[in-house]
Amino acid sequence: MSPSLPRSVRLLEVGPREGFQFEGIGKPDKIRLEDKARLIEMLSRVGLKALQIVSFVNPRQVPQMADAEEICRRLSPVPGVTYSGIYLNDTGLRRALAAGNLKITGKVTLTASESFALRNQRRMLAQDFEMQRKMAALYREHGYAVETGSVMAAFGCNYEGKVPLARLLELVARLQEVAAEVDSTLRTVTLADTMGWANPEQIRRSVVAIRERWPELAINLHLHDTRGLGIANVYAALIEGVDRFDTAVAGLGGCPFAGHRGAAGNVCTEEVVFLCRELGIATGIDLEALIECARFAETIVGHPLPSSLLHARVTPVPAEPVAA
Amino acid sequence: MSPSLPRSVRLLEVGPREGFQFEGIGKPDKIRLEDKARLIEMLSRVGLKALQIVSFVNPRQVPQMADAEEICRRLSPVPGVTYSGIYLNDTGLRRALAAGNLKITGKVTLTASESFALRNQRRMLAQDFEMQRKMAALYREHGYAVETGSVMAAFGCNYEGKVPLARLLELVARLQEVAAEVDSTLRTVTLADTMGWANPEQIRRSVVAIRERWPELAINLHLHDTRGLGIANVYAALIEGVDRFDTAVAGLGGCPFAGHRGAAGNVCTEEVVFLCRELGIATGIDLEALIECARFAETIVGHPLPSSLLHARVTPVPAEPVAA
Repeated sequence: MSPSLPRSVRLLEVGPREGFQFEGIGKPDKIRLEDKARLIEMLSRVGLKALQIVSFVNPRQVPQMADAEEICRRLSPVPGVTYSGIYLNDTGLRRALAAGNLKITGKVTLTASESFALRNQRRMLAQDFEMQRKMAALYREHGYAVETGSVMAAFGCNYEGKVPLARLLELVARLQEVAAEVDSTLRTVTLADTMGWANPEQIRRSVVAIRERWPELAINLHLHDTRGLGIANVYAALIEGVDRFDTAVAGLGGCPFAGHRGAAGNVCTEEVVFLCRELGIATGIDLEALIECARFAETIVGHPLPSSLLHARVTPVPAEPVAA
Repeated sequence: MSPSLPRSVRLLEVGPREGFQFEGIGKPDKIRLEDKARLIEMLSRVGLKALQIVSFVNPRQVPQMADAEEICRRLSPVPGVTYSGIYLNDTGLRRALAAGNLKITGKVTLTASESFALRNQRRMLAQDFEMQRKMAALYREHGYAVETGSVMAAFGCNYEGKVPLARLLELVARLQEVAAEVDSTLRTVTLADTMGWANPEQIRRSVVAIRERWPELAINLHLHDTRGLGIANVYAALIEGVDRFDTAVAGLGGCPFAGHRGAAGNVCTEEVVFLCRELGIATGIDLEALIECARFAETIVGHPLPSSLLHARVTPVPAEPVAA
């Protein structure tokens, strides 16, 4: 039916980073450091190979991530699992380099929307481009090639609307430029649907167009389920052979600066794993153990999380017959 | 990208029937008749052309649907909108015929799982087949052709597991037999994923196989989002040109006899309409007005319903810049 479905996919679990950042808005002490550490530990043992666990951002703006260094310090890395963080400027990158226990990847990021960049990065797009050049130089200084590019708000923005494909391609080209300046070549580009604007056909068109122009570039998708299309977008990407996704256990997450409240977060890790299992695509992840993590995540945030699969609570054993 | 996407789709809104049935389990007076009537009235004015509003089932087993006749009596049908009910046996069909204000369609239903049929219809599959013959005869007696067939648990069952495609095809063939006995020909077959077992590739394979064998038969899908794959399954069906779906406002619903609790209900009407709008497929439905209905549905059931779109509450107006 879909001959191009990948045989296996790689997931980057972003729930600890996105989820704790989002859940802690206005109540930075809501989630205890011990619980964060415990969830990271549990997620390290389900078969996930990569976890994004912290943001190195301004603790005055995002106090719920002020414990980023402490989380890294306490981490007992599980062999075979890599841990990473995000940062939006050179100060954050320096913190990440110093934190220890983290895998550093040379990564540059541009944003398709000026309005969103002003809110999230506090920079105009031109300033943001200069910041990426500065960070690329800093990576080089520390011996890292710039191998990953990322486009935020890649498909649309709550402030500026739909992002045209030509604009997306232009941003990928600019990311390549930044990498080239430090004699690097991008190996992967992440398209982040930060505010949940993508639709399945748009995902397919975008993947096809990027692959046509840069056949060597691997595509990773970071999708949100804001408007209910998250898993359909994953399926559309799988049809086009995409084999890398950022996902969040229980559907944790959401961007604090995205201009919506109460919205669903990232696509749920367990739903993506379930979809892959149903389609015969390997993930290497123990779904039952992952659902235990999702249940724990819900416990520590103290309210229901978006995952449908988590709440399905299917009873496989026949109950007493009752009928309509 | 997907040249076979339909230009328009028809939705049957099943929220009032499935939702009130499911929400009322164990507390039949939870939802007031006035609120049911009000939601039906609101849904009649958003552009939906067909609403399934009641079940004529045993009021001892499903007390929350004991007011089915009263709902039909109070209905002020909106011109251009048809209203229908469901029933599982000849007694129910007689009630529907007598209720008034309903569109009666000659419909026969088989179930892919014996265990589920025993719970939901209280019949073995062989008995269920005989019941369909009896109902087909009753339709003929009242001057209705048998034009619609339906397969429950068409893709899988919480008690019996995955349903093989061959089994599904056999059931469609048996539905055709029942119709032929009363000199009717099925025009539409509904595949009901009663317990949310389908995956997107299974949907596509099933649609292709049925269409290959019965090219004249229109396919309608009744999907549940139990495990989070609902909208991905709708997208998969759209890729194969399917243009008829049962959906429920706000994701109301769930089957009382499906062996799971807390599970998501039907695919959300507003998410399907949103998906279609994004893909350029006409539905004739006013999405904003529909979301108002979803909000009201949530108010009357008194707890959050599964719809992601409903909860996205996107703020299109830029808020004060705050940044990370």
